[in-house]
Amino acid sequence: MQEEIVFYTNPWSRGGIVHWMLEELGQPYRMVVIEYGPPMKSPEYLAINPMGKVPAIRHGNTVVTEAAAICAYLAETFPEAGLLPTPEGRGDYYRWLFFTAGPLEMALSLKAANFTLSAEQQMQFGCGSCETAVDTLAQAVAGRRYIAGDSFTAADIYVGSHIGWGMQFGTLDRRPEFEAYWNGLKDRPAHRRTEEAIAKAMPAEPTPSG
Amino acid sequence: MQEEIVFYTNPWSRGGIVHWMLEELGQPYRMVVIEYGPPMKSPEYLAINPMGKVPAIRHGNTVVTEAAAICAYLAETFPEAGLLPTPEGRGDYYRWLFFTAGPLEMALSLKAANFTLSAEQQMQFGCGSCETAVDTLAQAVAGRRYIAGDSFTAADIYVGSHIGWGMQFGTLDRRPEFEAYWNGLKDRPAHRRTEEAIAKAMPAEPTPSG
Ligand SMILES: N[C@@H](CCC(=O)N[C@@H](CS)C(=O)NCC(=O)O)C(=O)O
Ligand SMILES: N[C@@H](CCC(=O)N[C@@H](CS)C(=O)NCC(=O)O)C(=O)O
Repeated sequence: MQEEIVFYTNPWSRGGIVHWMLEELGQPYRMVVIEYGPPMKSPEYLAINPMGKVPAIRHGNTVVTEAAAICAYLAETFPEAGLLPTPEGRGDYYRWLFFTAGPLEMALSLKAANFTLSAEQQMQFGCGSCETAVDTLAQAVAGRRYIAGDSFTAADIYVGSHIGWGMQFGTLDRRPEFEAYWNGLKDRPAHRRTEEAIAKAMPAEPTPSG
Repeated sequence: MQEEIVFYTNPWSRGGIVHWMLEELGQPYRMVVIEYGPPMKSPEYLAINPMGKVPAIRHGNTVVTEAAAICAYLAETFPEAGLLPTPEGRGDYYRWLFFTAGPLEMALSLKAANFTLSAEQQMQFGCGSCETAVDTLAQAVAGRRYIAGDSFTAADIYVGSHIGWGMQFGTLDRRPEFEAYWNGLKDRPAHRRTEEAIAKAMPAEPTPSG
């Protein structure tokens, strides 16, 4: 497939995850910055993502939204990039992608909003208690260089980004397990290129949303 | 692989999604019912899922938690079951699996708990507003028999279960798009077998958790 990859993002967003994924992928792509507010809720952009959110990609006729879905889609569509797990790592690959996109994000969002869950709600909500969700993540990365099998995969990009940013913005404690895992990822050339590109694309006066 | 599949669940739980997946898969499996409360938080079960939640599976040495991850893992590990999308459907497959496991679950959980998000929080939280998340899902299934490409996939099991249960328990409105999509899925023999098995496994006095 030589169809163009169009990447819709904003420098202040979870788009950074997909940006890193695209840099690891090594395929050409075209980045389109969508500003927060009316441009992100315009009919043109809502036709791509009815949620009115970034990131999204268009690859030929295929539109994909949700940062984790974009990572899984690209890893599988371009297997030559080597970002898929071996069969032995496949369980962990999906487990931690979905855990991070679901329960972990929910737990950290609820905490940021100071919503507390009753014991009953902790049983019903996928995230349970925030402490348990964070402990579960810490256990998943403890003593591991990569989260799914013995090689770097798209799941490291997604989970690693959450851990790196979580520690940077203070939503995740700087636990030794998180530091060790993130230190093994953050200096990858593709990640450094991503950080530089994002820094350059930043407006002088940031509007911190998302 | 002829390794045993062990399925940890409770009849009153999201385990029903995995139950249906296993019935579609056509592989033998062994079901282990874990009771809510202390058994689900026992050291033995926490070694499988540190969240202390069902569902989970063990397949040989691989443990997978998160209902959506289990569906994706099994579909890929047993391709002969025909529950994977074609390459054309792959974007939608991951998109709607992750959308449902992330933003949709979060939006419906917040609504059930009567938590309301400020405009700022709607920009930051993956779920945005509950109305937009539900509208997005309705648009995704409108006029479609299957959510990813032209054939039934593991994503229909996962997304369909959310829609079917959401309407049954009143967390999702009975919109025509949802009814039409669910009516095209619910009479599949594997789904009927699952419902019968769950009804049989139900205690006379339900403890409605999860
Ligand atoms: N679940 C989505 C979340 C996307 C999201 O919430 N993006 C934020 C920026 S990080 C956004 O676009 N907010 C703008 C808005 O909602 O208006 C994902 O993982 O990609
Ligand atoms: N994100 C998980 C959610 C699992 C979950 O919350 N399960 C509930 C039942 S539906 C549970 O086991 N609750 C018992 C508890 O938390 O103690 C998934 O999708 O599998």
